[in-house]
Amino acid sequence: MNKSTNHQMDEAIKLILQYNNIFIASHINPDGDNIGSMLAISLALRKINKNVSVLKSDVLPEDFMFLPGSHDIQEYKEELGPIDIFIVVDCSDEDRLGNNKALLSNAKKVINIDHHISNTMFGDLNIVDPKSAATGELIYKLIKKMGISLDIDIGSNLYTAISTDTGKFSYESVTSRTHRIIAELIDIGVDFNTINLNLYENMSIEKTKLFIQSLSTLKFYEGNSIVTLKITKEMLKHAGAKMEDAEGIISFIRKIESVEVACVLKEIEMNNIKISLRSKRDVDVALIAQSFDGGGHIRAAGCSINSNIEEAEKEIVGKIREVVR
Amino acid sequence: MNKSTNHQMDEAIKLILQYNNIFIASHINPDGDNIGSMLAISLALRKINKNVSVLKSDVLPEDFMFLPGSHDIQEYKEELGPIDIFIVVDCSDEDRLGNNKALLSNAKKVINIDHHISNTMFGDLNIVDPKSAATGELIYKLIKKMGISLDIDIGSNLYTAISTDTGKFSYESVTSRTHRIIAELIDIGVDFNTINLNLYENMSIEKTKLFIQSLSTLKFYEGNSIVTLKITKEMLKHAGAKMEDAEGIISFIRKIESVEVACVLKEIEMNNIKISLRSKRDVDVALIAQSFDGGGHIRAAGCSINSNIEEAEKEIVGKIREVVR
Ligand SMILES: [Mn+2]
Ligand SMILES: [Mn+2]
Repeated sequence: MNKSTNHQMDEAIKLILQYNNIFIASHINPDGDNIGSMLAISLALRKINKNVSVLKSDVLPEDFMFLPGSHDIQEYKEELGPIDIFIVVDCSDEDRLGNNKALLSNAKKVINIDHHISNTMFGDLNIVDPKSAATGELIYKLIKKMGISLDIDIGSNLYTAISTDTGKFSYESVTSRTHRIIAELIDIGVDFNTINLNLYENMSIEKTKLFIQSLSTLKFYEGNSIVTLKITKEMLKHAGAKMEDAEGIISFIRKIESVEVACVLKEIEMNNIKISLRSKRDVDVALIAQSFDGGGHIRAAGCSINSNIEEAEKEIVGKIREVVR
Repeated sequence: MNKSTNHQMDEAIKLILQYNNIFIASHINPDGDNIGSMLAISLALRKINKNVSVLKSDVLPEDFMFLPGSHDIQEYKEELGPIDIFIVVDCSDEDRLGNNKALLSNAKKVINIDHHISNTMFGDLNIVDPKSAATGELIYKLIKKMGISLDIDIGSNLYTAISTDTGKFSYESVTSRTHRIIAELIDIGVDFNTINLNLYENMSIEKTKLFIQSLSTLKFYEGNSIVTLKITKEMLKHAGAKMEDAEGIISFIRKIESVEVACVLKEIEMNNIKISLRSKRDVDVALIAQSFDGGGHIRAAGCSINSNIEEAEKEIVGKIREVVR
């Protein structure tokens, strides 16, 4: 965290101490870092008697409902009272707040805490550090700096935030600091074994069926350096699954040794195909996604193509081929 | 590590400093902890000018040949000279040394370094600590205690040993010490991203095919709390795979949310079925394995049944049912 980010954190702490009614919101398609960070800071601020409201901006995946504090997450309603401070975590831009975006203008002050390099700095204060492996690391630092003692409930949320956003402490973004934070959480008694069972050993039968079915659509191109997989509405119906159950499949097919680019095509509607791209070492998939008006990071990006799934596959593979060759 | 284990380590250091010709051997079916620990200690002892021979007791999986020092691993031959000290790592008993077991009696002193609770204490010195998540943690401690400086090559082997034996720092056996060791390895510059690509993003096409085929044999019992999967010789042939490619499949099927016991049946020969068992929370699979003359740990055990694979499935499921019910 550089000097100016540090300064933003100091200013944020002053604001938090000054005001009482604090709102914290998740983003759309909330992930472990988003939910874990949100719950950790909310539990910490309640320890210093702040009046904290925790808002959802989208449906919360059942998988995270084991987290301490998760049952206090609610829809915004006017009776919650005035918004002194609105804290947004792990959210690169305002649009990711969905309907709760409108609340930003009601808030006296907006504090934006994130680690995405693409963050649009939409807050009055912006604690944005792309060198943090997870927003959870920034929340850890904020809590420590405020002198609030960590406890098992806060720690369980921080563990979840950091573990899920780093592929179990293995992505390039991890630093020695990441591991030292986790060591401290273990020392205060966080039951990481139960957390891991909840996070990673909890695949529904429907998701399992979808996984098995979709693997039958695997196709390889360019000497097995490109792999594609398709998920159709028909498959979802057959497996009794939802499209969100497709999560994780792309990481699995990227593991294949020859693969440099993995591509999953999801049939949202007949002529609306959502495409996810992952690369392993050399290819910048953000560039590929951009040529279809999408975006993302070097190793993970996405876009949409408005045609049927077979046609969309041809188009995207044609583009990937140009880069892989 | 308790006081007596600490004392054994001090004695081992004295021996190592006293003698020059040091042999270190892998065990049969060597895993990441075995190979990483063996290479880390061999590289460290070479830094203090010991004459170190690194022996294999079995075929080494190609997956680990990216590790620094791995190309010095060799078969034992008499020309390697007298054996002053024989160091055995991550090996619960002598039989796991295969043909190299015979060398134990040629050695002036045997040092046994391990973390299996079942270790038979076959060494002249036994540095055995079941509280270490990996033998790699004990090797880390030994190297530090000897005052040998860690470097990237040694560190890469220790990272591999610890990461592979802890399911990426997530098993119950992990402690805050595990994470602090990893933090130190990252600080000295270990390229964990490349190591992780080599360890976990390197699934062969044959293994992928075997994985997909075997999933079509999934069967559920007792309200989906028991799951079985079969791997036949026919499938191996069809996928061009080896039985070792079946590794990892059992962890995958154990992830299914309803599953308490996962069971993989491997057809070694027509009437020789090797069975692996994993449990999630409550069931002691070692007990189940024992009733078929097998063994293992509470959460991971194995046994063999001499009948055809369908018959073996019936027998083992019958036994699991008694426990799960
Ligand atoms: Mn994040
Ligand atoms: Mn081990």
